[in-house]
Order: sequence, then structure tokens, then C-alpha cells
Amino acid sequence: MEKIGRTKIVDLFKREDFGAVVNVKGWVRTRRGSKQVNFIALNDGSTINNVQVVVDLANFDEEMLKLITTGACLSVNGVMVESVGSGQKVEIQAREIEVLGVCDNTYPLQKKGHSMEFLREIAHLRPRTNTFGAVFRIRHNMAIAIHKFFHDKGFFYFHTPLITASDCEGAGQMFQVTTMNLYDLKKNEAGSIIYDDDFFGKQASLTVSGQLEGELAATALGSIYTFGPTFRAENSNTPRHLAEFWMIEPEVAFNDILDNMDLAEEFIKYCVKWALDNCADDVKFLNDMFDKELIERLQGVLKDDFVRLSYTDGIKILEDAVAKGHKFEFPVYWGVDLASEHERYLVEEHFKRPVILTDYPKEIKAFYMKMNDDNKTVRAMDVLFPKIGEIIGGSERESDYNKLVARIEELHIPMKDMWWYLDTRKFGTCPHSGFGLGFERLLLFVTGMSNIRDVIPFPRTPRNAEF
Amino acid sequence: MEKIGRTKIVDLFKREDFGAVVNVKGWVRTRRGSKQVNFIALNDGSTINNVQVVVDLANFDEEMLKLITTGACLSVNGVMVESVGSGQKVEIQAREIEVLGVCDNTYPLQKKGHSMEFLREIAHLRPRTNTFGAVFRIRHNMAIAIHKFFHDKGFFYFHTPLITASDCEGAGQMFQVTTMNLYDLKKNEAGSIIYDDDFFGKQASLTVSGQLEGELAATALGSIYTFGPTFRAENSNTPRHLAEFWMIEPEVAFNDILDNMDLAEEFIKYCVKWALDNCADDVKFLNDMFDKELIERLQGVLKDDFVRLSYTDGIKILEDAVAKGHKFEFPVYWGVDLASEHERYLVEEHFKRPVILTDYPKEIKAFYMKMNDDNKTVRAMDVLFPKIGEIIGGSERESDYNKLVARIEELHIPMKDMWWYLDTRKFGTCPHSGFGLGFERLLLFVTGMSNIRDVIPFPRTPRNAEF
Repeated sequence: MEKIGRTKIVDLFKREDFGAVVNVKGWVRTRRGSKQVNFIALNDGSTINNVQVVVDLANFDEEMLKLITTGACLSVNGVMVESVGSGQKVEIQAREIEVLGVCDNTYPLQKKGHSMEFLREIAHLRPRTNTFGAVFRIRHNMAIAIHKFFHDKGFFYFHTPLITASDCEGAGQMFQVTTMNLYDLKKNEAGSIIYDDDFFGKQASLTVSGQLEGELAATALGSIYTFGPTFRAENSNTPRHLAEFWMIEPEVAFNDILDNMDLAEEFIKYCVKWALDNCADDVKFLNDMFDKELIERLQGVLKDDFVRLSYTDGIKILEDAVAKGHKFEFPVYWGVDLASEHERYLVEEHFKRPVILTDYPKEIKAFYMKMNDDNKTVRAMDVLFPKIGEIIGGSERESDYNKLVARIEELHIPMKDMWWYLDTRKFGTCPHSGFGLGFERLLLFVTGMSNIRDVIPFPRTPRNAEF
Repeated sequence: MEKIGRTKIVDLFKREDFGAVVNVKGWVRTRRGSKQVNFIALNDGSTINNVQVVVDLANFDEEMLKLITTGACLSVNGVMVESVGSGQKVEIQAREIEVLGVCDNTYPLQKKGHSMEFLREIAHLRPRTNTFGAVFRIRHNMAIAIHKFFHDKGFFYFHTPLITASDCEGAGQMFQVTTMNLYDLKKNEAGSIIYDDDFFGKQASLTVSGQLEGELAATALGSIYTFGPTFRAENSNTPRHLAEFWMIEPEVAFNDILDNMDLAEEFIKYCVKWALDNCADDVKFLNDMFDKELIERLQGVLKDDFVRLSYTDGIKILEDAVAKGHKFEFPVYWGVDLASEHERYLVEEHFKRPVILTDYPKEIKAFYMKMNDDNKTVRAMDVLFPKIGEIIGGSERESDYNKLVARIEELHIPMKDMWWYLDTRKFGTCPHSGFGLGFERLLLFVTGMSNIRDVIPFPRTPRNAEF
């Protein structure tokens, strides 16, 4: 076979030098045709669109042709010609075909129309489907948009540790990390496990948030963001929970709560706009196949300013709705931690656009949030989105050393774990703010997928760590 | 104090509208001067360069002035004027100063000239030093360069899982991840721990590489890269080992070993050039303070093509050197796993430029590498760098199902863990290649730092998981 440099299919569709001899490589999606001519739909993962390869059967070896089945991997040399029937501008008239890898009829993706549940069981192969190809190309693009957004603004990407010896946030259960031999645990006389022999010489876990370390960085480098894996050992088998997920946590010195809201709104609009601008084919596919309102919902977010509303005013709206007969599953009262149904009511029914809810009761928020003068509420801000509910949670941080210490004592957080965090308030403290975005939450919104297990390549959930 | 929008110091130095009234915020690095005029060097982390704030003492409150100590956080309104003495084009004549955060004399960074060991103990504050500010800004820039390089080439960023239930690589010891109560481990009659109650229903660990999952993605999406944390539970207390580090692993369908070498060379040159082009101030600082040959070494890498040499020829050169009287600590013979001293001899003494060594004995490389026709060597490629030794390791992968199975059996790798990986060879297999770059190895090279604990914010090493 003549050696010709490979053209990716996504690049082929941009070319207009019809008549050129090109090489494409990829996997057979379908093959159909007559006894004279066959049409092979070839996909190489670079785009959701297949290139049509036209095969004049008389020119090819019969035994080779038998190997061209769904899933087989081909290298094709041929002439690039204008296409009328293939749905694309370009198709290829095959001159030479090499079968790089055969694919027999045990291939699980031969037939179409598999359930999402089945595809999760073959997560090692599902990136080869149109749906997951689209989802994972969008996932890539969202990651790139995030880095570009922050880099262009002069933020520094900061890697906070995954393994940690302190549970400062106390946010749910953690995974323990150990190299001890579980068959031979050393214990002291009181029966306590001696961690001296463990890898880190003490008990260690997987982080639930990089925020506290992010604050260390922000009070040195100014503006930083994290983007890395985060872990929760909650036994939650829902379409919204993962044990291992990716978080983005910007933290900015000198930003107050208003700056923080501006940043969050600009940031998430940037990401959504990036998806519409750079993933048009993939978004359109998901819109047509799964969620007919997807594109409209994405465009909707970009249209208006987000509503900014205090928690207290939000509760009033919800109480009014209840008074007027709206039924919620969970009760509504000042002090309650809002459920997704409440958040979505505000966004989808009442305002019909995203809402930033602020100034929550201190009891339902973390210790590090800045106390308001009322001593009842803190400068928290949650961004609420249609279909998703809370997509971003953040706050201005308490920058006053004494107030922070008082709050830590009030909540009985062990002070011995907090000395390094408190040092930021002790030595040149400054106002600062930040927020966290669950990457997979963003992806649920942007792809229209309804289960969080379908926007991450290999989901980790209770009883599932396959592949 | 009048409210004026903040200008980051890095942006201030780009302005030329002298006479403008500006606001800067940052931390005091030094304060000196006479009884009439003081000069405050202010840094906000956006650049290694301080802005000089000129304070006419007569205009300010004496009590406030006392609070302007090293480490204090200030907000300064003032007039931007051309500077002659400050080392920068711009300085600020203060009109108003607000002390946002005081800093007393217990601040550990008051005096200069701390040892790197001491700074590691206060890793929560060290980003505030010139050295670590420079290192972490470069770290950010290298991450951005990596994403930009691959995105521009049409690669997709792919998140492989951190928690895994299989140890396919068998590359060293792994950390176990568990939610079991270690005080109440369930065992069966034979005395084996029953993992049924553990979070994932089986024994789980932290990944040592995302490569195998990366191959799944490459054989679907074409060209992918990973960039995420990786873990090794080796008890190695050396300046080159971390228990938690970041890896970049590109994997490309249809690339052979030659394409792979081209990609690796282009990639690493791109990163080094990015550092020289975009981190000039920080690189120069590190060059002047720590490593006078740093810039020369970085430029050296860009100058020439890397040498490409087989392992067998490399061994001959080393054996010649030994014959001529060169002393190595470790023996040299065909079949040996090269030590850093051997790699550096080839690079620094013999060729005086980077070397890509290929076709290693199969015994010292992983099972998934493509066997050469000699049945003795595999299509591995290691990129060897001055000062660092191996900076990249990669290979063309074995794409033949039967050969791969034979190799897995030969090495007694449990086949039951490998079914999903083997499926890529069973269904539409294709030639493909990839490599891994340890992010911190790249940073050691680019920053000139000599201990890997000084290029990651919070190093995890034996007996150390602080902050």
C-alpha cells in the first residue's frame, strides 16, 4: 500500500482540494451498498461525523472485503471528491484498503440502540459510540475553556494535594489511604491502631476539597485556581453522585463577595459559550438525540444577567409559592438547607433564568465563610441553574483571625489541624473569596446527559471501580 | 479611602500613562528609607517584581505607619510615576494607604536566606517567597503549555480514574483505599478479609498510571492525553521521588515508534520554549540565584535535533567509556536497566545533547510494548535529558492480540484483570504509541531546582503529608 500521510477526518472536512489523493484511518461504523458498490462510514474519533468511503467492489480482493465489518480498523488511500449523498461535503473513492484490525461478530457495539446502563457496563468501549464520543470531546473542550479563561485573566493553576492527613472541612466521609498490612495491624495497649508504620506515619485520607490549600496560594500568588480530582466516600447511589469527581476551585485575594459573583457568572457563561462555539456538531447531536431543549437552555443562560437574591428573599418566594398551593416534597422555612426542587423552582418557575443566592444562615454553611453584621448569615453565594440546581458554591472568606478562631471553637473543629490555615489570617491577612464548581455538574448541564456516570469516562460509585 | 479599581502589579509595569492615580494591593517585602521618605517594596504574586511605593512620611498617620512591616498586607492609592532607582519603569507615590492585614515579628519569613529544608517545613507560606513564587508561576505556565500543545494538535484531554481495582502495570507498591473500619475487619473462615463491605465491594488502590485506560480512549477518540495525579507507595526518601505526583500521558492511534519520537521531541521543546518565552523574569531569577547554567541548558535543548540511538548502541558507547577508564558506580552490560549516571554520561559527556534511546531488552520493559522481530527487544523509547536523566518513557504498543496474550502469560499477569484491555486488540486493533512525562521531572529541568519536593506545592513523601 502506498504510504501517504494520514489526514484526520475532522481536517478532511475542512479541505476543498478535491481530486487530491489522501489517506484516512479509522473504524467502520456501518457498511452498506449493492453488489457493485459499497459505502463504508468511517470514524476516527476526531469528529462525530463519519467520512463516506466509496468502494468499487470489482477493484478489491474478495477475502479482504469480507473483513470490513462494523468495528474493524481500516487504512484507506483514495481520492477526495465532493459528496452529494453522504451528508458531508467530502467523500473518498477508495483506491487501496488495508484492514489494520478485524472485528468479529462478538463485538458488543455491532448493533445500535444500546441502553445507557449496558454502555456503562462496557465503559471501556463506549467512547467508540457517537454519544460518548460527543460527551468526551465536550469534556475536553470544557477543560480547555476553563484553563484558558483563568490563564487569560492572570490566574495561576495550583495543584493542591490529593492525599491529606487532616479533615478540615469535615465534608462527609473520606477514603482512608494506607500501606499498612491489614492482616497485621499494630495496636497499642489501649487497643488503638499505631499509625507510626503507615506510609505517612499517621492516618491519611483522600481530599474532599482543595480550598484551604487554595487559600494559602491565593494569599501569596494573588489569583489561583485548582482543577483536580476530589473524593467523597458517601454511600449515595444516585444519578448525581460520584465517589471520584473533578473540581475547579478559584480563590482570589482582594475579591469580595460581589467580585466573586461577577467572576462566577462570567466564568460559567464563558464555558457555555465555548461549548456552543467549539462543539457545535457534538452539542447538536446530543440535542437531537437526548434533549431537544439543550441548545435553547445553553443559549438561555447566556442571554440575561443572573438574578442576585438573598437566601432570605428566596425563602419568601418559596413560602409564597407554598401558600399559593405549590407542593414541594421537602419543607420550606428560614434556616432550611434548600433541596434541589427548591432551587429549581426559583430558577425554572419563578425567575426563568439562573439565580445567585447569597447570605445563607451560618448553620448550614462552612466555618470559613465571612460572617455578616447580623451575626446570623454568612457571605455565601450559590449559583443555581436550570435542570441542575446548585452548580457553583462559594463565599467570601472570613479574613479576621479572631472571628475565625471563635467560629472554629464554636464548631469544635480540632485547632491543632488548623494552625497553618490560621497563619494566613495571622500574617498579612486580606479579604478574599472563591468558589467551587463540580466539573461533572457543568458537564451534565452542557451535554444534557441525565446521569453523572455518563459524563466521566470511568465512574467510581458504591460497589463500582471497574476498568 | 477612595475606591479605585485595583491594578495587578504585573499589569502596572505594562502601563505608560504616568500621572494616573492607581490602586495596588499586596504584601510588604521590605521597607527602608529615611526620616522623611520611606520606600516600600510591595508584591502581589502576579510577578516576581515588586513595585516601589514611595511614602512621604509627613503625610501619613504615625500609628498606621508602624503597622507597615514585612509581610503586612496593604492597599495603596497613589500616582504612577516613572522610576529611576527601583529597578522597574514604574513606581507609586502614595496618597492613601490602608493596612488590610498586620504582620508581627513572629512571621517566619521576615528575614531572608532561609534554607530550602526550613521552607519545606513552612510549605504553607513558602509560595510567598521569590523562589517559590517563581517556581509555582512556572509550574502554572508549564501546565498551560501542555494543554495548549495538545489542544492545538487536536488531542483530547482524557480523565483516567485515580481509584482502581486492578494493578495491571504492577509498577511498584500501591496505596490501598478503603472505607472499612480497621477495628472491625470482617474475615472469612480461611482468615481472608472480606471486601464485600468495602466501598467498592473489592480491594481498591490508587493508580500508578493512566496509560491502559488512555489506550482505551485513543482507540476510540484517536489522539488523547492524560494529565493527572499518580501515586507510588515506594519508601524512597530521595530528591527525585514523590508518593503523589502529576503525570502527562499522551496516547495516539496510528502512531508508530517514529511518530512517537517526533511527538515527544516536539512536545518537550514546546514546553521549554514556552518557559523561556513566557516566564523570562522567573527563569532569570532562578538562573541568577540557584543555577547559573539554567538558561543556557534550556536554550541548549532547543538548538539541535535529539540524538536517536538504540539501547544496544548506547551500551556499546558506555562499554567503550569503561574500557577507556571512565568509572561508573553501577555495572554496564547488555540487558542492564540503565542508571541515571549512564543516561547522563550519554547526554552530558558523549553527545552533549538530549538522546532518545530505543529498542530496549524486553526483560526491563513493560508487557504492553511492541516486540521487535529479534524477539529480544521491544519498541521502547526513553528521552534522556541533561541533569535529569530519563524525562520521558514511552513505546509503541503491542497491537497484536495473540502476541500480547502470550506476553501476559509469560509474565504471569492475571488474565482476569486484563479482559477489557485485551478487547482493544480484539475489536479493530490498530498500531498505536504513547509516552509518559513526569510533570515534576519537567519542572526540575525547567526551574533548575535540585529537589523534587521544591517544585510541587505540598510534597507527599514517606512520613510526610502535612498541610
